[in-house]
Amino acid sequence: MFKNDSQFARFILELAEESGQLLQSLYRKHIRTEYKSDASPVTEADQKTETLLRERIRKAFPEHGIFGEEYGKEREDAEFVWVLDPIDGTKSFIGGVPLFATLIALVQNGKPVLGAIHQPITGDIAIGNSTETLVNGKISHVRKSENLSRAILLGTDYYDVGRHQSRSGFDSLASQTAFYRTWGDAYGYFLVAAGLADIMVDPIMSPWDIMAVVPVIEGAGGRITDYQGNDAVTGTSTVAAHPDYHAHILKILAG
Amino acid sequence: MFKNDSQFARFILELAEESGQLLQSLYRKHIRTEYKSDASPVTEADQKTETLLRERIRKAFPEHGIFGEEYGKEREDAEFVWVLDPIDGTKSFIGGVPLFATLIALVQNGKPVLGAIHQPITGDIAIGNSTETLVNGKISHVRKSENLSRAILLGTDYYDVGRHQSRSGFDSLASQTAFYRTWGDAYGYFLVAAGLADIMVDPIMSPWDIMAVVPVIEGAGGRITDYQGNDAVTGTSTVAAHPDYHAHILKILAG
Repeated sequence: MFKNDSQFARFILELAEESGQLLQSLYRKHIRTEYKSDASPVTEADQKTETLLRERIRKAFPEHGIFGEEYGKEREDAEFVWVLDPIDGTKSFIGGVPLFATLIALVQNGKPVLGAIHQPITGDIAIGNSTETLVNGKISHVRKSENLSRAILLGTDYYDVGRHQSRSGFDSLASQTAFYRTWGDAYGYFLVAAGLADIMVDPIMSPWDIMAVVPVIEGAGGRITDYQGNDAVTGTSTVAAHPDYHAHILKILAG
Repeated sequence: MFKNDSQFARFILELAEESGQLLQSLYRKHIRTEYKSDASPVTEADQKTETLLRERIRKAFPEHGIFGEEYGKEREDAEFVWVLDPIDGTKSFIGGVPLFATLIALVQNGKPVLGAIHQPITGDIAIGNSTETLVNGKISHVRKSENLSRAILLGTDYYDVGRHQSRSGFDSLASQTAFYRTWGDAYGYFLVAAGLADIMVDPIMSPWDIMAVVPVIEGAGGRITDYQGNDAVTGTSTVAAHPDYHAHILKILAG
């Protein structure tokens, strides 16, 4: 029903096209940046992009709900709710680095049934429905490096790990992999779903980020849970990797 | 004499154009990757790109010397020596992340007089002669954030810091900045020269990486030295930032 070629999937591609054009026009321009109470930045681009997405969704599916990072919830009790993060990785956006992403998820009765990760500068897009994931139009699978010592480990912010989870557990995992990079936020999940990297770890995660990422990783055959191995959708952290060593990774992370 | 519009600068742009096309054709393809004794990866793409650059240089300037990461030195006693790193950030290249760069420097009697940092997927290019730096064709300046707490700190590999320099000094610097990311290798210097990020720190640096980076940072009005404040060209580490707080940053890094 929610195939990658369904009306909803085609609609997501249209949204990505339009929001991508807007973000391209604002990238590396001097735009207004404010800092939230937790010191995280928010720009005019986050706000304009979410406004655009909300308008398009309201027009196309007036009976659906919307939950976005910048402007909150509307009709949250609807069967279908669109969950949006206009710029996941605002720090990459303000740094002029093409590793941020627009996240669009369709959630049915609390379960994400379609998700998209779109990087508008490189044009990379992954769209998944937990059964199948297309990366730039082609079916994609998470990879499993021959052993952990060849695996690429990704995260979003090194210092956030120690603030929310075991720093020594993360350091131990990093020491057993080929290398660790902060090619993070949703783009890290894109790289895992694309079979370009192996493990993505977020010690802290917001609901508007998780919903799009889960069907993309699962559709590529990956396993994604929180740090404790529970359902990622209701968790506040995420670990994504090939199912063959996901449990082993959780054990190392526990420190 | 070595203006950004000199024959040498125009030649560098031609080299970047050709090597960029080659790297675009190999990006995210299944290509042969080997691991050196220090576990750092080298791919067919590194080798093919350096071969291409060497051939072009030999043909255009047969009397010049060449020093490249993959194939070493030839005519190293010549007045002019081209210093090449075909892919700085091979880990980014194999991860399918557009943060690697081709480095091309022209060194006269041991001093880099022209340098270029080229990212062939996004098309970003910085070219500097220590007096002036052009970023994507426009004169660019390093920026100075209003205070350190708004500064973006970049590095290449978090764990390499502790292996070669003071980890606590680096952690202290990171805690005083807005955030730290591993948008590193030469692309980190590109971002500083472009005024998109503030501080780039490498605890360990190879000669083929330093030569291109120095005239780019200096041409954008930045200061670049090794960890001890000495000439970056003869050093084995680098710290690049706005001159107004470069010395302060070195002090924090010393731990």
